[in-house]
Amino acid sequence: MSRHVELFTLTGFPLVQPGDSLTTLILQALQDNHLSLQDRDVVVLAQKVVSKAEDRYVSLSDITPSEAAQELADKADKDPRQMQVLLNESREVIKTKLGVVIVEHNNGYVHANAGIDQSNIEQNGDERLLLLPENPDQSAEQLKQSLEQASGTRQLAIVINDSFGRAWRNGTCGVCIGAAGFAVIDDKIGESDLFGNELKVTQAAVADEIAAAASLVMGQADEGTPVVIIRGLNLMSSDQGSETLIRAKQDDLFR
Amino acid sequence: MSRHVELFTLTGFPLVQPGDSLTTLILQALQDNHLSLQDRDVVVLAQKVVSKAEDRYVSLSDITPSEAAQELADKADKDPRQMQVLLNESREVIKTKLGVVIVEHNNGYVHANAGIDQSNIEQNGDERLLLLPENPDQSAEQLKQSLEQASGTRQLAIVINDSFGRAWRNGTCGVCIGAAGFAVIDDKIGESDLFGNELKVTQAAVADEIAAAASLVMGQADEGTPVVIIRGLNLMSSDQGSETLIRAKQDDLFR
Repeated sequence: MSRHVELFTLTGFPLVQPGDSLTTLILQALQDNHLSLQDRDVVVLAQKVVSKAEDRYVSLSDITPSEAAQELADKADKDPRQMQVLLNESREVIKTKLGVVIVEHNNGYVHANAGIDQSNIEQNGDERLLLLPENPDQSAEQLKQSLEQASGTRQLAIVINDSFGRAWRNGTCGVCIGAAGFAVIDDKIGESDLFGNELKVTQAAVADEIAAAASLVMGQADEGTPVVIIRGLNLMSSDQGSETLIRAKQDDLFR
Repeated sequence: MSRHVELFTLTGFPLVQPGDSLTTLILQALQDNHLSLQDRDVVVLAQKVVSKAEDRYVSLSDITPSEAAQELADKADKDPRQMQVLLNESREVIKTKLGVVIVEHNNGYVHANAGIDQSNIEQNGDERLLLLPENPDQSAEQLKQSLEQASGTRQLAIVINDSFGRAWRNGTCGVCIGAAGFAVIDDKIGESDLFGNELKVTQAAVADEIAAAASLVMGQADEGTPVVIIRGLNLMSSDQGSETLIRAKQDDLFR
């Protein structure tokens, strides 16, 4: 039998405001789209809606840049206040060039600009930035429990995704920054291949592949479809969080 | 309306032999799975079946390692003949440590082991390696034309995928190494976000996201489902090849 996997976008998802319940908004949007959750569905949320619900806004007018932020701003040709926010969100600046600052985020991700940007943010007369959720794995776990309870479903998997640039390749790709309810890495070491040869190293970053698949259909411009339901994947159950996806600094050849 | 995207695996896909017509095998497998191609379908093929059809096998007994291959083998603790094949397939060795050699492949990809591995390869009494297709974009383009002609469909998109490790993150992710029929990078620069702010830099690596989505359902161990059909994506038509996904060396901060 052909295996069949489906992705559904929730069209008409409202603009999220600080304090909104994502569970309520998702269930309403499902109903408006004539859909309902099923056991083992994967729910993928764009980072921005989680950050907005958690009120992760920062007003630039509240920020006084340090000397380090000023230096970084000169080097990258960016707003010094924005660089101060970036430094607050990061453990380490890894590379800088004109227009680009690559950091290790407080949560461990190596990426550009600490995941902060100004697109799809209402400006409300003040210049605001939107930070990543403070603890995306915890946000994902809470959402899993709340969605399961409200919908009467079991074994939901949750992914919070963001778009990261990559070394060596052009274009951004959807990446998992928060996960709950499944094995984010599918470890094949020790299994056999089609010819019975033992597989040496095959650990698939399933959560990142889910994040990328959802990103394909979310759209990033004015399409406004920040929630995607994926049905038909046979994910392994686990309480691995997304930190499993982050390579330890000492094992990393590229910093 | 909810947008709906479907992925179908072609179960029972036969073991591919050198000289086999992938078009014939795909059309037969579609029929066996009670499916048929539709206009604008995306057909994703695992690199291995393309390489096998193109007889990209190398017998290790035919290889005499050079001094450079011997040195690399000592450093990485690998077979010197395998390192000779890797050097033949690469422009440059970028990093080496025990068990890992990162290269720039002749086709431009930066990845481990020049994409050569021994999993899912019949050994036939001799130790054999399977190289990447020589020109995967050309393989994809030929397959597009041949599948369109044989099935009477139009505007098919083709992706040849492989699993690459990444800097900074654990686990492999599906990546596009060959493409035909669509814009592999979806360029949003200049478009507006939900609030009318101009998007600064949002170039989505659509082809890599497709490759990752397909990899999710292909499985990498003994599942044997190397072809995935994706239906419902609205891809932009283009004759961009997969080289568009490769960052120019001078623009790369990480080598």
